[in-house]
Amino acid sequence: MSDLLHTPLHAVNVGVDLFAATLAAQGVPVERVDWRPPLDTLDGALGRLLADPAIDAANQEAAARLLGARPLLVDVRPAHEVIPGMTRRTFLHAGPPIAWEAMCGPMRGAVVGAAMYEGLADTPEAAERLAASGEIEFAPCHEHGAIGPMAGITTWSMPLCVVADAAGDGAVYSAFNEGLGRALRYGANGPDVLDRLRWFRDVFGPLVAAALRGGEPIELRPLFAEAIQMGDECHNRNKALTSLLFRRLAPRLATAGWPSDQAAAALAFIAGNDHFGLNFSMLAGKLAGDAASGVAGSTMVTTMARNGTEFGIRVSGLGGRWFTGPSQIVEGLYFAGYGPADANPDIGDSAITETTGLGAFAMAAAPAIVQFMGGTPADALRHTQTMYEITVTEHDAYRVPILDFRGTPLGIDVRRVLRTGILPVINTGIAHREPGIGQVGAGLVHPPAECFVAAGRAFAARWPAA
Amino acid sequence: MSDLLHTPLHAVNVGVDLFAATLAAQGVPVERVDWRPPLDTLDGALGRLLADPAIDAANQEAAARLLGARPLLVDVRPAHEVIPGMTRRTFLHAGPPIAWEAMCGPMRGAVVGAAMYEGLADTPEAAERLAASGEIEFAPCHEHGAIGPMAGITTWSMPLCVVADAAGDGAVYSAFNEGLGRALRYGANGPDVLDRLRWFRDVFGPLVAAALRGGEPIELRPLFAEAIQMGDECHNRNKALTSLLFRRLAPRLATAGWPSDQAAAALAFIAGNDHFGLNFSMLAGKLAGDAASGVAGSTMVTTMARNGTEFGIRVSGLGGRWFTGPSQIVEGLYFAGYGPADANPDIGDSAITETTGLGAFAMAAAPAIVQFMGGTPADALRHTQTMYEITVTEHDAYRVPILDFRGTPLGIDVRRVLRTGILPVINTGIAHREPGIGQVGAGLVHPPAECFVAAGRAFAARWPAA
Repeated sequence: MSDLLHTPLHAVNVGVDLFAATLAAQGVPVERVDWRPPLDTLDGALGRLLADPAIDAANQEAAARLLGARPLLVDVRPAHEVIPGMTRRTFLHAGPPIAWEAMCGPMRGAVVGAAMYEGLADTPEAAERLAASGEIEFAPCHEHGAIGPMAGITTWSMPLCVVADAAGDGAVYSAFNEGLGRALRYGANGPDVLDRLRWFRDVFGPLVAAALRGGEPIELRPLFAEAIQMGDECHNRNKALTSLLFRRLAPRLATAGWPSDQAAAALAFIAGNDHFGLNFSMLAGKLAGDAASGVAGSTMVTTMARNGTEFGIRVSGLGGRWFTGPSQIVEGLYFAGYGPADANPDIGDSAITETTGLGAFAMAAAPAIVQFMGGTPADALRHTQTMYEITVTEHDAYRVPILDFRGTPLGIDVRRVLRTGILPVINTGIAHREPGIGQVGAGLVHPPAECFVAAGRAFAARWPAA
Repeated sequence: MSDLLHTPLHAVNVGVDLFAATLAAQGVPVERVDWRPPLDTLDGALGRLLADPAIDAANQEAAARLLGARPLLVDVRPAHEVIPGMTRRTFLHAGPPIAWEAMCGPMRGAVVGAAMYEGLADTPEAAERLAASGEIEFAPCHEHGAIGPMAGITTWSMPLCVVADAAGDGAVYSAFNEGLGRALRYGANGPDVLDRLRWFRDVFGPLVAAALRGGEPIELRPLFAEAIQMGDECHNRNKALTSLLFRRLAPRLATAGWPSDQAAAALAFIAGNDHFGLNFSMLAGKLAGDAASGVAGSTMVTTMARNGTEFGIRVSGLGGRWFTGPSQIVEGLYFAGYGPADANPDIGDSAITETTGLGAFAMAAAPAIVQFMGGTPADALRHTQTMYEITVTEHDAYRVPILDFRGTPLGIDVRRVLRTGILPVINTGIAHREPGIGQVGAGLVHPPAECFVAAGRAFAARWPAA
């Protein structure tokens, strides 16, 4: 003890930097070791799961299935023609299951708008009464082969893009992206919004369908690979993806047999909407995530989705079960006149992009995005690099030039999230918490830790199977 | 001396690393100082020029004029309608002035093709006889408000894009980019090449003209700024630029009043040609370079151009005078089946992009380009960073995300090239040395040092003016 008090002190600081900083301020040399405690040890089971080569093998199999999907844009069809069991009173929504009473403002606004668009109600008040009556069947898009950004409300007559798997028998569906500003997906439901939905149904959807049927299906995977080399991450930056898709569609739209003013309106709509591509990266992600589902023993996440109230994940080896926690508030840049008090919690199915190697997981490819969501280009690099800590593998087609063409981090491993305490990073638009206002900013958000703890506990309870 | 032999040696190595490496290999500690001798001291005058604040001020003025240009794409017109004094026997070409006898293979091939396209000759042999007869007036594009990639042959009936300056009264002209493969600009002159030129003249040109006249002029500067954030450097990587331009043109092309199959053919032509944008970055560069010309006392380069035999530069304070040296061989990647023995020396007016802050000067923004021209993403960053050593300022609109949105290096200062020995870097396609074959690779090249030495001597001889 007397030695300790009379010899120079050398300290090693493990994990949280608080003590190191205090010592350093007093002139004491400190070695810093980067370490953080596990998020949760699953009552000691985590070590066993991390060391199990059968889980590693199952995750490799799940990742291989994910990477094996080959999304083809083949058609546009009304929802009721492609989604089995859909009725005029089936309303699909983003995220895990939720009842009308628990829905956030933007989702309620979108339900009201969709009810009027479908002719089920004449006024917003009547639409709200209908929604509260129990006569509407609410169900997640994700459980019906569909995917929806923000509120994600998808109903009977909406034209849906059809993406089929050239390497399997899967097919998935999504409505068109409406553009920024007032849009149903943000809970806006005024006449302009409903008019656009009708134009989608009566003109734009059939015209795109005719264009697609007039030629080969459009392979989507090469477009994402190319867009990643053009500064997109294909979630909140879709300029290149939209442009590449437009280059493939435009000549066909002009010769689809529609009057030239309608063809020109369709061309102008896509050309004027930098986010038109988003729904296609979501479709490809949904197709890939579904292909990776159901691998026994896999702890790889196949779905991350939010309904604006809850965030839910699904895990390959745990089937269709959702593991949920409260949706978080997004940290980012707000448009002029708005701030955090206006923000709805995290919402939408678009986190399927991060689930499948795009979005914030690919932000190193898209440093210009920081102008829109805050931070610096170095942060964008760091987000991608950090995600390698919690993922199963790297994408074989989405390669980031500035990282020497390294593939994006792919396939979130629940075990590694629990071990490192590193939560997946998601970049996202921020919806106003009230219906009808729309997007008020963009930024970064994480899932609630509960999802991963609950999924880990469920997995540990049944693995290895008896 | 006996001390020197008996005490440990410590060496300082200035400049060339040869001695340092030898000493280091023998275990001798070496301090390396990065230094290189001037390229040329202009018989001692270089120090005086470098220290002259009047030259600094003139260069700032020239750079401000360059940055002040506001290129607008306004029209497409036949060459003879917009270029004063043009006759059916005026053949404009890339680079500094050159006679038929001195022209390289690809330029001769293009002259032959253009003569047949204009109806001046029925066979290649007749065209060659005509070209050798002295009855063709050859003149640089650059001296007639025009700009031409590779051979750059521009003749009477070709439809030229018209770019006007919204901030001044300048206007500049360029033919359309023909796409890769067999093209007149690479010296190909077969029936397919001439048919495409006729389609440009009879269909595509008038259609684009009608589309442009049907709306506002298209502002080009924001497109380059956006393309730089999308992985283009706008010389050899133009995917984003082409896409952005296409998004603005496509709806207009569909409603320009032409039959839908012709509109669709025009849309498909642009959509299928990743380099369609190149001629527009050259037009904008030409407009800016011309605007910066003629500032007394400025040592800033306003033109770099090559005719495949000679490389020429022009300098703001030295008027229209060319300073030339031999065109160099490009170092890069060759297409399968070709190698350096097939390469024509550096050719074309496209180095106007590097002259005005794009091309290799913006390569940090386009790391994916190394797949096409060799090297690594780190090399791409380095090329841009090195050019800050020899430039007057930074571009105010072309900002590189990965460099924390720093503007690209802009305005080559002859003095700084001479002082540092750093030659401008240019990325470029490689033409086969024989006519008719086309592009055989892509890579990097430098101007011959002679251009800068000659320009420096000419400047020193008349500065300060009496």
